[in-house]
Amino acid sequence: MSTTKRIANPESNPRVKAVFDDIRATRKTDFINNFWYALAFDPTLLETTWDEVKRLMGTPTNIDPLTKEMIYIAVSISNACGYCVHSHTAAARAKGMTDAQHAELLAIIALAAKTNNLVTGLQVPVDAAFDAT
Amino acid sequence: MSTTKRIANPESNPRVKAVFDDIRATRKTDFINNFWYALAFDPTLLETTWDEVKRLMGTPTNIDPLTKEMIYIAVSISNACGYCVHSHTAAARAKGMTDAQHAELLAIIALAAKTNNLVTGLQVPVDAAFDAT
Amino acid sequence: MSTTKRIANPESNPRVKAVFDDIRATRKTDFINNFWYALAFDPTLLETTWDEVKRLMGTPTNIDPLTKEMIYIAVSISNACGYCVHSHTAAARAKGMTDAQHAELLAIIALAAKTNNLVTGLQVPVDAAFDAT
Amino acid sequence: MSTTKRIANPESNPRVKAVFDDIRATRKTDFINNFWYALAFDPTLLETTWDEVKRLMGTPTNIDPLTKEMIYIAVSISNACGYCVHSHTAAARAKGMTDAQHAELLAIIALAAKTNNLVTGLQVPVDAAFDAT
Amino acid sequence: MSTTKRIANPESNPRVKAVFDDIRATRKTDFINNFWYALAFDPTLLETTWDEVKRLMGTPTNIDPLTKEMIYIAVSISNACGYCVHSHTAAARAKGMTDAQHAELLAIIALAAKTNNLVTGLQVPVDAAFDAT
Amino acid sequence: MSTTKRIANPESNPRVKAVFDDIRATRKTDFINNFWYALAFDPTLLETTWDEVKRLMGTPTNIDPLTKEMIYIAVSISNACGYCVHSHTAAARAKGMTDAQHAELLAIIALAAKTNNLVTGLQVPVDAAFDAT
Repeated sequence: MSTTKRIANPESNPRVKAVFDDIRATRKTDFINNFWYALAFDPTLLETTWDEVKRLMGTPTNIDPLTKEMIYIAVSISNACGYCVHSHTAAARAKGMTDAQHAELLAIIALAAKTNNLVTGLQVPVDAAFDAT
Repeated sequence: MSTTKRIANPESNPRVKAVFDDIRATRKTDFINNFWYALAFDPTLLETTWDEVKRLMGTPTNIDPLTKEMIYIAVSISNACGYCVHSHTAAARAKGMTDAQHAELLAIIALAAKTNNLVTGLQVPVDAAFDAT
Repeated sequence: MSTTKRIANPESNPRVKAVFDDIRATRKTDFINNFWYALAFDPTLLETTWDEVKRLMGTPTNIDPLTKEMIYIAVSISNACGYCVHSHTAAARAKGMTDAQHAELLAIIALAAKTNNLVTGLQVPVDAAFDAT
Repeated sequence: MSTTKRIANPESNPRVKAVFDDIRATRKTDFINNFWYALAFDPTLLETTWDEVKRLMGTPTNIDPLTKEMIYIAVSISNACGYCVHSHTAAARAKGMTDAQHAELLAIIALAAKTNNLVTGLQVPVDAAFDAT
Repeated sequence: MSTTKRIANPESNPRVKAVFDDIRATRKTDFINNFWYALAFDPTLLETTWDEVKRLMGTPTNIDPLTKEMIYIAVSISNACGYCVHSHTAAARAKGMTDAQHAELLAIIALAAKTNNLVTGLQVPVDAAFDAT
Repeated sequence: MSTTKRIANPESNPRVKAVFDDIRATRKTDFINNFWYALAFDPTLLETTWDEVKRLMGTPTNIDPLTKEMIYIAVSISNACGYCVHSHTAAARAKGMTDAQHAELLAIIALAAKTNNLVTGLQVPVDAAFDAT
């Protein structure tokens, strides 16, 4: 079940085909996951989303690839996006995340949620020492 | 403003003093931030929270210290905990986060929130390839 | 799967029947979606919920009907309510939302989530110019 | 700072005065907190909000008054509503919440957030035994 | 579908068996729900999670058992954790929650979410009277 | 207080100046709000954010400008971003939002949050009629 129709042959649209080809080339795999098929109903939304994902997640930057996936998992859990948790956990595994790291990642995310709730419940004032300005 | 009274001399309670001493020793600083003062109204809550924070964040584990702070920042932003964003950004800086990494961290968190919303709006079905079971 | 039992013949209860009849009359359709069946386990909860939905969403007001559905979709995505995303996307389509508007709606929601996260990560102070008081 | 203008003399509007009088009578105090002043810019919004708050929170029902405030605190923390955390913590105290109960309430909310995150991170399938239908 | 492999015979690990035995003894039932099976991939995560759940939810404390489950449901709904809503609604029912209380619980959670959104939309300043410090 | 240093003279950087000039030209005002100053610590983050905001919010598209601001407010409230609520409420007012529309917007957002919570609490299964695939 989805909120948009699945397009029968999305790559008959050259803009969609160009993005899908770039996904395959960047990721070095023929597999294209459902997210990109779902975005294909609007080529502009597909292109702009892929451009940003490729620039930050598919290119070497100042943060290492596995850390980036872990950050993505943390946000996806917080936003209760089941699909995103699945896809980025698979991506993190593909980038070398061990079971021990996975367990620790989940433990840290859960601890952060826990202390976030304690702080908000206590309404703790920000320490002057934390001010960067 | 807080939802609990600030205790005048929290370290007169030996359980509070023991936790505060351990925070100072673990972090190698005399500075104790407001979160721990706020928790001091209930020594059990203070002890159990510190135990968990120390075990996961104050001890070498399978994920490097800076990555752990970045994960904490990601969750704290998602949960809109201003205090937590401040304290863990300061901690990440103390552990070496550069401005370029900070900007990239924020960009990845923002991108993750963006694609989480797209996926939820599209109600994308999970690919069979992501199933770990 | 649900957290409440599905009532065998909910309209045998006259209060439930009155609400269901009003839903059919207001929406000009015989279709009653699962949300109302689920609420039927408690007639008071059913009545008060329908009264508010009818007053704001089923009656001409100061905001046009399609805009109201778009706002509803935005909130439902933010709260990760899959059912609500499905039902209000269907409602928006029935009120004339085009594919281009759907794509743009999702893009704006995703952008808002993105900048919300940047602002919270940066802890930007509110400009005096924004104060309405 | 607020997003609406503070009305100079809100009770010059008889609809606002009627609500404020009912708040005072129901709560047996002259104190009216800022939330109701802020809602006074739109008498309909003020009336419908107060009607619902009074019916559920200001009237004896099937759940005891302190428990209701604790539930309200839990939701308000989850939604990161600082004002709401403050107002309902004060209300819970006025209804007898002790420091020990406050600490335990925060501990349970924090634990729930923690296990929510673990479950979402693990994508645990719902046990058949939990199905009520 | 899950993000971790289901372990074939988790109780062959003595640490897992010890936790599972304690769950059975504490809850006086042979039923162990999927959450604990999912956590069994990392015995430390399993042990620390169960220790905290047992201490707060499986032991008599300052808040009665049914209220604790209701608080857990409130947080789980706010965090959109479907599994958690199912498991804690079942637990609340097992501890005596009636249909009328269930309906009222949902009504209060929904009202709290509603007023949280109104307060955040209005950006209401905190009343000085709510300050506990 | 912010998590980044406020740059003394941000427009001495030509990339920052180009973005700021474009903001002024697009919005036809000299006022640049704090969000853009905060982003100026990283010109790439500033440029990519402004590009997307300009394309979707500063250019005529398939959704009218006031509706777009209302959607932005809805998301910002859901994400508890106080700054964002302030800035986009000011923007909506500048684009013609009346007090009556503001009150109704808040009422709809609050109702959506309310029914989102009811649906999640009831775990309502999606109607087949809502499936777009």
